[in-house]
Amino acid sequence: MSSKRTTIFVCVSCKLAIDGHGNDFEKPGRELAAAVDDHLRGAGASGIEVRPVECLSVCKRACTIAFTGQNKWTYLIGGVDAKTHADEISVTAQRFAASEDGIIPWKERPLFFRKGVIARVPPETYRITEKAE
Amino acid sequence: MSSKRTTIFVCVSCKLAIDGHGNDFEKPGRELAAAVDDHLRGAGASGIEVRPVECLSVCKRACTIAFTGQNKWTYLIGGVDAKTHADEISVTAQRFAASEDGIIPWKERPLFFRKGVIARVPPETYRITEKAE
Repeated sequence: MSSKRTTIFVCVSCKLAIDGHGNDFEKPGRELAAAVDDHLRGAGASGIEVRPVECLSVCKRACTIAFTGQNKWTYLIGGVDAKTHADEISVTAQRFAASEDGIIPWKERPLFFRKGVIARVPPETYRITEKAE
Repeated sequence: MSSKRTTIFVCVSCKLAIDGHGNDFEKPGRELAAAVDDHLRGAGASGIEVRPVECLSVCKRACTIAFTGQNKWTYLIGGVDAKTHADEISVTAQRFAASEDGIIPWKERPLFFRKGVIARVPPETYRITEKAE
């Protein structure tokens, strides 16, 4: 496993309507961050930090999280459910941390990840390959 | 101006339909990257690099670009027009480079930026402030 540090940013500004009319809402980001942290501790994962952030500007796809790490692609994932996805986020973060470049093979990506990708950003070390030209 | 390096990633995989039926398309990313680079050179901007990237996973909002820099928020912007936005992207990149944290004041953001934000990601140095709690 790579020894480089991984951070999971969790948006705590994301709002979810809870009355069906958009008049009342909850902000499940802090609950999600705590649940992911619990799962990581339970798994004995090291070098992975869960960090709350006030807005990732993906307000239409609450909750939103981002997987980041040194010399790795950053992945932004929306539509995350605080109640059902915390365990899978923990497992995915460990796969992300273990990867060389942050790119997790498709078959190892859980459904929340496959369906939720908002965007990705290459690391500073990235250079386009001839193959992609 | 900050001496830290700024990178503008430009997606060269982004497809735009050119026949109205989605049967034929162009990939304007390389043209956009070259045009932004021309404007930066024309402005004598230093420390800002335009770098093609094969996919930023924002395929529904072509073209997509990302402003990144050390210890700065990363901004992903979609719906960028290769023919009309290159100059504004160059100016915005210089404001981004000159900023402390990558956050450009709203009134200094051109329309392509205001309308195009897909997401943002904090720098590794980010910690949530008490105010945002």
